[in-house]
Amino acid sequence: MATRSRKKKRGARGTPASATAPGLSAPKMERVHFHAIAYDEQNFEERSFESVEQALAFCDASRTTWLNVDGVHDAEVIARIARFFDIHPLTQEDILHTAQRPKKEDFQHYLYIVLQMLRYQPEGGGVDSEQISLIVTPKTLISFEESPGDAFAPVLERMRKTPSRVRAQGCDYLAYALLDTVVDNYFIILENIGADIDALEEEIMESPNANVHHRIHDLKRQVMSLRKMIWPLREMIAGLSKQDSPLISTTTALFLRDVYDHTIQVIDSVEAYRDLLAGLLDLYLSNVSYRMNEVMKVLTLIATIFIPITFVVGLYGMNFKYMPELEWRWGYAFVWGVMLVMVAGLIGYFKKKHWL
Amino acid sequence: MATRSRKKKRGARGTPASATAPGLSAPKMERVHFHAIAYDEQNFEERSFESVEQALAFCDASRTTWLNVDGVHDAEVIARIARFFDIHPLTQEDILHTAQRPKKEDFQHYLYIVLQMLRYQPEGGGVDSEQISLIVTPKTLISFEESPGDAFAPVLERMRKTPSRVRAQGCDYLAYALLDTVVDNYFIILENIGADIDALEEEIMESPNANVHHRIHDLKRQVMSLRKMIWPLREMIAGLSKQDSPLISTTTALFLRDVYDHTIQVIDSVEAYRDLLAGLLDLYLSNVSYRMNEVMKVLTLIATIFIPITFVVGLYGMNFKYMPELEWRWGYAFVWGVMLVMVAGLIGYFKKKHWL
Amino acid sequence: MATRSRKKKRGARGTPASATAPGLSAPKMERVHFHAIAYDEQNFEERSFESVEQALAFCDASRTTWLNVDGVHDAEVIARIARFFDIHPLTQEDILHTAQRPKKEDFQHYLYIVLQMLRYQPEGGGVDSEQISLIVTPKTLISFEESPGDAFAPVLERMRKTPSRVRAQGCDYLAYALLDTVVDNYFIILENIGADIDALEEEIMESPNANVHHRIHDLKRQVMSLRKMIWPLREMIAGLSKQDSPLISTTTALFLRDVYDHTIQVIDSVEAYRDLLAGLLDLYLSNVSYRMNEVMKVLTLIATIFIPITFVVGLYGMNFKYMPELEWRWGYAFVWGVMLVMVAGLIGYFKKKHWL
Amino acid sequence: MATRSRKKKRGARGTPASATAPGLSAPKMERVHFHAIAYDEQNFEERSFESVEQALAFCDASRTTWLNVDGVHDAEVIARIARFFDIHPLTQEDILHTAQRPKKEDFQHYLYIVLQMLRYQPEGGGVDSEQISLIVTPKTLISFEESPGDAFAPVLERMRKTPSRVRAQGCDYLAYALLDTVVDNYFIILENIGADIDALEEEIMESPNANVHHRIHDLKRQVMSLRKMIWPLREMIAGLSKQDSPLISTTTALFLRDVYDHTIQVIDSVEAYRDLLAGLLDLYLSNVSYRMNEVMKVLTLIATIFIPITFVVGLYGMNFKYMPELEWRWGYAFVWGVMLVMVAGLIGYFKKKHWL
Amino acid sequence: MATRSRKKKRGARGTPASATAPGLSAPKMERVHFHAIAYDEQNFEERSFESVEQALAFCDASRTTWLNVDGVHDAEVIARIARFFDIHPLTQEDILHTAQRPKKEDFQHYLYIVLQMLRYQPEGGGVDSEQISLIVTPKTLISFEESPGDAFAPVLERMRKTPSRVRAQGCDYLAYALLDTVVDNYFIILENIGADIDALEEEIMESPNANVHHRIHDLKRQVMSLRKMIWPLREMIAGLSKQDSPLISTTTALFLRDVYDHTIQVIDSVEAYRDLLAGLLDLYLSNVSYRMNEVMKVLTLIATIFIPITFVVGLYGMNFKYMPELEWRWGYAFVWGVMLVMVAGLIGYFKKKHWL
Repeated sequence: MATRSRKKKRGARGTPASATAPGLSAPKMERVHFHAIAYDEQNFEERSFESVEQALAFCDASRTTWLNVDGVHDAEVIARIARFFDIHPLTQEDILHTAQRPKKEDFQHYLYIVLQMLRYQPEGGGVDSEQISLIVTPKTLISFEESPGDAFAPVLERMRKTPSRVRAQGCDYLAYALLDTVVDNYFIILENIGADIDALEEEIMESPNANVHHRIHDLKRQVMSLRKMIWPLREMIAGLSKQDSPLISTTTALFLRDVYDHTIQVIDSVEAYRDLLAGLLDLYLSNVSYRMNEVMKVLTLIATIFIPITFVVGLYGMNFKYMPELEWRWGYAFVWGVMLVMVAGLIGYFKKKHWL
Repeated sequence: MATRSRKKKRGARGTPASATAPGLSAPKMERVHFHAIAYDEQNFEERSFESVEQALAFCDASRTTWLNVDGVHDAEVIARIARFFDIHPLTQEDILHTAQRPKKEDFQHYLYIVLQMLRYQPEGGGVDSEQISLIVTPKTLISFEESPGDAFAPVLERMRKTPSRVRAQGCDYLAYALLDTVVDNYFIILENIGADIDALEEEIMESPNANVHHRIHDLKRQVMSLRKMIWPLREMIAGLSKQDSPLISTTTALFLRDVYDHTIQVIDSVEAYRDLLAGLLDLYLSNVSYRMNEVMKVLTLIATIFIPITFVVGLYGMNFKYMPELEWRWGYAFVWGVMLVMVAGLIGYFKKKHWL
Repeated sequence: MATRSRKKKRGARGTPASATAPGLSAPKMERVHFHAIAYDEQNFEERSFESVEQALAFCDASRTTWLNVDGVHDAEVIARIARFFDIHPLTQEDILHTAQRPKKEDFQHYLYIVLQMLRYQPEGGGVDSEQISLIVTPKTLISFEESPGDAFAPVLERMRKTPSRVRAQGCDYLAYALLDTVVDNYFIILENIGADIDALEEEIMESPNANVHHRIHDLKRQVMSLRKMIWPLREMIAGLSKQDSPLISTTTALFLRDVYDHTIQVIDSVEAYRDLLAGLLDLYLSNVSYRMNEVMKVLTLIATIFIPITFVVGLYGMNFKYMPELEWRWGYAFVWGVMLVMVAGLIGYFKKKHWL
Repeated sequence: MATRSRKKKRGARGTPASATAPGLSAPKMERVHFHAIAYDEQNFEERSFESVEQALAFCDASRTTWLNVDGVHDAEVIARIARFFDIHPLTQEDILHTAQRPKKEDFQHYLYIVLQMLRYQPEGGGVDSEQISLIVTPKTLISFEESPGDAFAPVLERMRKTPSRVRAQGCDYLAYALLDTVVDNYFIILENIGADIDALEEEIMESPNANVHHRIHDLKRQVMSLRKMIWPLREMIAGLSKQDSPLISTTTALFLRDVYDHTIQVIDSVEAYRDLLAGLLDLYLSNVSYRMNEVMKVLTLIATIFIPITFVVGLYGMNFKYMPELEWRWGYAFVWGVMLVMVAGLIGYFKKKHWL
Repeated sequence: MATRSRKKKRGARGTPASATAPGLSAPKMERVHFHAIAYDEQNFEERSFESVEQALAFCDASRTTWLNVDGVHDAEVIARIARFFDIHPLTQEDILHTAQRPKKEDFQHYLYIVLQMLRYQPEGGGVDSEQISLIVTPKTLISFEESPGDAFAPVLERMRKTPSRVRAQGCDYLAYALLDTVVDNYFIILENIGADIDALEEEIMESPNANVHHRIHDLKRQVMSLRKMIWPLREMIAGLSKQDSPLISTTTALFLRDVYDHTIQVIDSVEAYRDLLAGLLDLYLSNVSYRMNEVMKVLTLIATIFIPITFVVGLYGMNFKYMPELEWRWGYAFVWGVMLVMVAGLIGYFKKKHWL
C-alpha cells in the first residue's frame, strides 16, 4: 500500500517564499492507483485497478467514463495514458510538475484543466495543497490527484445514488462538479482566516503583544497565497463558461457561471481580508504606541513634579558655614511651604494643559 | 403571525470578517406570506394570501401582476413557484441562499435580479441587510424578501393613487421602481457615515483619545462592506440599462440609466469616504504624537535645567573635612550665583534653538 | 429683487463629508429671472423677462436664441419650459436637484449637459459651487443657473461686440463657450491651491506647528472634491467632442477637443497636488519628529553626563562615621579629579559615536 | 540682438506647485528670428531672416524646406505664418501659450506636434524647460522655439554633411530627428537624477541629517514633473508611429517606433525612481529613528543603573540622630557592597535581555 | 583568446540607479567569435569560425542553420552580417547598444528578439546581466551574446544527441528553446531571492539589527529590476505566441504559450516578493520599536519608583537646625516605613494598569 506523505506547502507560517519554480514532485506514494466509473442515468459501474492497462481497457468510447488516477510521480504511467488519449507532451509535463498556476488549455479533441486543491489539515497542520489535473474528452474524464484521498468523495457519493443530476449529464458536467467541490473548499479556508482575523481584532483591543504582528504577518501570507491561486482560477472558469469549446455543453456552461460567481465571492473576501489585515496592523501599532505613551506620561509627570523639589531639598543639604535659612526657627516649615507651592503650581499647569 | 427576527449582519462594529460563505438562511419567520397586486392604468386589485396555490392562481397571464413573497426559508414554496414560472434550479438556489453578490441573470423567458437591501435600524442597532430577489417575466414581477417588512411601502403607496406613473408601465418599470427604492436607502446609510466622519473629525481636532482609532476602524469596515455591495450593483444596473433583454423596454432603460447615475454617486462618496478615513487616521495619529511630544518637551526642559544645579547642590552637600568654599563668607551666595548663571545659560540656549 | 444667498458647499474646511445625497435645493431667490438673446452674425437682440411666458414667446425657431434662466427652485417654471421644448421628466428632475455629477445626456432632439461651476469667493469665504444645466436644441440654448450672477459675463461681453466668433456659429458653439468659461474657473481654483501648497511647504521648512497638519488635511479635501468633479467632466466633454450627436457641428467638436485638453491639464495638476500633499505630510511629520529628537538628544546627553557625577557627590554626602576619604587632605580635589575623568570619558564616548 | 532670458520653470527646488494654468509667455526676446533650410539629397541651402515675409518667400512648394522660428511672443508673426500655411486658430493659440501638455493634432493638411524640451542648465541652475511646436506639412516643416538656442544643433550638423540620411528623406523624417533629439535630452536629466539618488543613498547609510528629507522631496517633485511630461509624450509618439496620417511615411513610422521605445525606457526609469525615492525615504526615517534609539538606550541603561545607587547614597546622607548603620565600623564598606551587588544585578538582567 | 570581463550591472547592492540611458557597450572581448550549426533530423554539422566571411559562407539557404555570434562591440561585423541577411539599421543599433528593454520586432522577412539573460555569479558576485539578440529568418537563426559563455550550453547538449526534438523542428523552435533557457534562469534568481527573504524573516523574528533594513532595501531593488525586465518579456512572448508572424509555426506557438505561462509565474512570484518585502519592513520596524519600548518601560518603572523615595531621603539630608523628625527615636524607621508604603503604592498602581 502507498504510504500517505502529502507535502505541506503552506504550513502554519504561510508559504515559504522560496517555493517558486515548478519542480518535479517528490514521489508521494509507491504505486499509482486507478479508480474508474462508467455511468449513465440508469447504469453505474465502479472499479479499482492497480495496472494502467486494465484501467485503459475499461475506458471504451461507447459509454461515459470517469477515470481517477491517484499519483502523478510515474512518468511512464502518464505517458501510457497520454498515448491512449492522444495527449500533447506539454500537458504531460504539466501533470508531472506539481506547482502549476491554475489554467485551462484547449487542444481541440480534449480540454486540459489544472488547479490546486486547498484543504485545512484536521490535526491543525495548516493548509495542505494538492494539484488536480482534469482531462475532458468527449466521453471520458480523467482526473489526476497527487495522492490518494477523499477529495472527490462528495461527488462520488452523489453519483452512487440513483436519481442523480451528475449521471444524467456528460463528463463536462462531472468536470463542473469536481471544480465546484474544489472551490467550496476555498470557502472553508476563508472562514478559518476570517475567524482568525476576528480573534486577532478582539485580542488587539484587549491586550496587544509582540506576537500579534507575527500572526498578522502569517495571515497576510496565507491571504496572499490564496490570492495568487484564486485570480487565475477565476480567469480559467470564466473562459470555460464562455463555452469556447464544443466539449462544454450549454447546460454545463450555465452551471460553470455559478462556480464563476463563487470565485468572485472568494476574491471579494480575499481582497476584503487584505484591507482588514492592513487595518488591523495599523490598529495594533497605534494601540501599542498608545499604551507606551500612557506609561511615558506617568513617568513624565512624576519626574517633572519631583525634580524641582528634589533640588530644593538638595539645596538645604549643603554644608556651608553661613546659610541663614538653616538657622531660622521656621526654616523647615518654610521649605515645606515652598515645595507645596511648587507642586501645586505644576499640577495646576498640567491640569490647564489637560495632561492629567 | 411571523415573529420579526431579522439578522443583523452589520452591527455597530461592522461586518464580522468570518461571514463569507453563502450559507442557507436560518428560518426567519414561521410561514411564508404572499401579497399580490394586479394592475393597469385604470384597475388596481390588491390581495394577501397565506397559501402558495392561491397566490399563483391570482397571477394569470392576462394582466400585469406583482407577486411579493415574504420569507425564503421554505424550499418547497420556492420550488412550487419555480415550477409555475419555469425557473431554473440555479435561480432557486440563489433565492434560498441569502448572501448573494448583487447580480442579474438573463434566462431568455425571465430575468433574475438579486441584491441586498441595507437599512439603518431605528433603535441604533447598526445596519440591517436583507436579500431581495426579483424575477421579471413578461407579465408578472415576483419579488422575494427574507422577512415581512415595509421595504417597498413607498412604491406601494404611489401605486395606490390613481394617476400613477408606475401603473401606466409594465412590470419592468415596477422592477426599476423597486431598484430605485433600494439605492435610495444607500444614500441614507452614506449620510449617517458622513455625519459620523464629521463628528470624528471634530473630536480629533479637540481631544483625541484611544477610542477614536477603533471608531475609524469600524467606519472603515462599514465603508468596505458598502463598497463590496455597490460595485457589483453598479455593474448589474449598467447591464440592465443597456437593454440587452427584450424584457426591458426603452422607456424603462432610460430610467435605469438614472438609477445607474445614482450608484455612481454612491461609489464616488464611498471612495471619498475611504480617502477621508485614511486621512483622519493620519490626523489622529499625528495629533496624538504631537500631544505626547508637548508633554515630553516640558519634562525635557525642566529636567535639563534642574539636573546640573542639582549636581551643584549635591557637591556642597559633601562632608569632606577640607572644602575651602564651605568656609567662605559668601560661599552660599556664590553658589546661588553659579546656579542662576547656569539656568540663564540653558534658557538662553533653548530660546536660541526655538525650543521655548 | 432677489437677495443673493448662495450656498457655500465647500468652506474653509473643505466639503462637509455628509453632503452626498442629491437633495432638492433650498430656494435661493424669490423669483426666477430670464435673460434672452437672439443673435446671428449681423443682428443681436438682448432682453430681460420676469415671466416665463414672455421669455418663451421670444424664442421662436426662426433665429438662434440663448435663454438664460436664473433660479431653479420653481418646479412650475421648469415644467413650463420643459413642455415648450419637449424635455424628458428625468432632465427636469436633474435641473431641480442641484448636486448632480457632471454628465451629458443625448435625447435625440436635445442634448442635456449638467456641471458644477466653482468660484473662489472674493471675501475669502472659500469655494462656492453652483450647478449649471445646459439644454442644447437645434436653434435654442437654454442655460440654468442656481442664482443670478455674472458667471457668463465674459461670453456675453464677447457676443455684444460685432465681429464676434461666437455669433458666427450656432448654439452648439455657444455651449462650448460656456463650458470653456466654467473650465477656466477651475484653473483659478488650482492656482489658489497651488499657492497654498507652496506657502505650506515654506512654513514646514521653517517652523512646523500642529496647525500644518490640519491645513494639509483641508487642502486634501479640497483637492478630493475637485477631483470628484473633474473626472466625470472630462468624460462628458470627451463624449461631446466625439461628435456622437448631430447637434454638435464638426467645427465645434474641434473646439471641444481644446476644452478636453484643458480638463486633462486640470486632472494632471489635481493628481500632482495629491502626490505633493502626501509628500508634504511626510515632510511635516519627519520634521516634527526630527525637532523632537534634537530636543531629546540634548536632554539625553546632559542627563547621561550628570547622572554619574551626581552619584559621586551623593556618595561623599553620606554621614558614616568611618569614611577614610573624608579625612584626606586632598579628598575634595581627588573627587573633582574623578568627576572630570568621568565627564571626559563620557564626552569622548559620545564624540566617538558621533552623537555630539 | 535678443537678450537670453529663459525662464526657469523647474529650479533647484523642483517645479513650483502653482504654475498650472497655461498662461501667455512673457516676451523672451525682442525680435523673432527665422532660420530656413531648403534641402534634398544633393542640394542644401541655409539662410537666416529677420522678416517673416522674406522667410515665407523662401518656402516655395517645389522643394523640401525646414523653417525654424525662434520666439513665439509675437502673435502677429504667428498669424502671418498661419495665413500662409492655412493653420487653424486653435493651433495658433497653442503655439502662443507655452505650457502645453505634449500632444499631436491632425488637421488633414498638416500635423501639429507640441512638446517640452528639458535641459540641464550648465551653471547648476536646475532644469530649463522650453516649448517646441512642430508643424508638418507635405513639403515644409516649421519648428517654433521660445528663444534662440542650439537645441537642434546636432540635427543641423548632421544635415550639413553630404551623405546624410536626414536629407535623403522628407520632412516627416526631419520631424522624427527633432523628436529624437528632445527625447535624448530626457535621458540626461534621468542620469542626473539617478546620480543624485545614488549620492543620497550613500549619505543616508553614513550620516543621515535633516536635509536629506528635503532633498528626497525635491527629487520627488522633479520626478513627478518629468512623469507628467513623459506619459503624454509616449501617447503622442505612439499615435504618430501608428501612421494614422498620410504625412508620415512607412519608413519614418519605423523610426518613430524606435523613439517610442525610448520613451518607454524613460517611463520605466521614472517609475523605478519613484519607487526608489519612496524606499529611500523609508530607509532614511528608519535610520534616523535607529540612531535616536541607540542614544536613548545608552541614557536608559546609565540612568537605570545609577538611579538605585543614588538613592542608597542619599539614604545615608540623612541626618537622623539614630541611624545605627552610620555608627558601624564597616558601614561604609557595606554600602559599597550593597551598591556593587545592585549594579551587578542590573547589568546581569540587561545582559539576559540582550540589551547590552 | 578573449579575456572574460563581463560587466556586473546588478551587484550585491542592486542596480545602480543611474544606469538608464542605453549606452554603447564597452568592448568586452578582443575579437568576435562565431559558432555555426547546420542541422536537420538526421544530420548535424558544428563549426567554429574567427572570420565573419567564413561564418556567412557556411549559412547557405538550403539547410536550417544556427549562427551564434559571441561579442557585439564590433559594428563592422554586425554591419557585414546585416548586409548578408538584409537587416534594418535600427535592428543593428539595438544589437550594438546593450541595455535594451525586452521586445520583439517583426520586419516581415525576419523577426528581431532582444532580451536580457540574468545569471547568478557563482563566486557570490551578485547577478550578472547579458543582452541576447535573436534574429529569426526562415532558414537561419542568428543569436548575439555580449561575451562568450555557456548560456546556451543545455540547448546545444540536447541538439548533439540524435533523437532530438529541437532538430526535428525549424529554427523558430530553436528560438523557443533559447527563450525557454533564459526564462529558466529567472527561476534560479527568484529562488535565491526567496531564500534571502526567508533568512531575513527568521533574523527579524530573532534579533533585528540596523543592517536588516539595508538588506530589505537591496532585495527590493533586485526585485524591482527583475520586475522591469519580466513585464516586457511577458508582453513580447505573448506577442510571439499569438503567431502574428508566418515565421512562427503553429507547433512552436504552442510551446511559446508554455514559456508564456512561465513568465506569468515569474511575475506572480515577483509581485508576491514585493508584498512580502513590504510586510517584512513593517515587521522589522515594529519589532525594533517593540524592543525599544521594552527597554524604555523598564527605565520608566525604575525611575518612577525611585524618584519619590530619593526625594524623601534628600528631605532628611537637609541641615536645618530645627527639624523635629531628625530627633525622633524611631525617625529613621519611620522614613523607611514611608518609603516602603510609597513603593508598594506605585507597584500596586502599575500592576492595576497591567504595566508590570
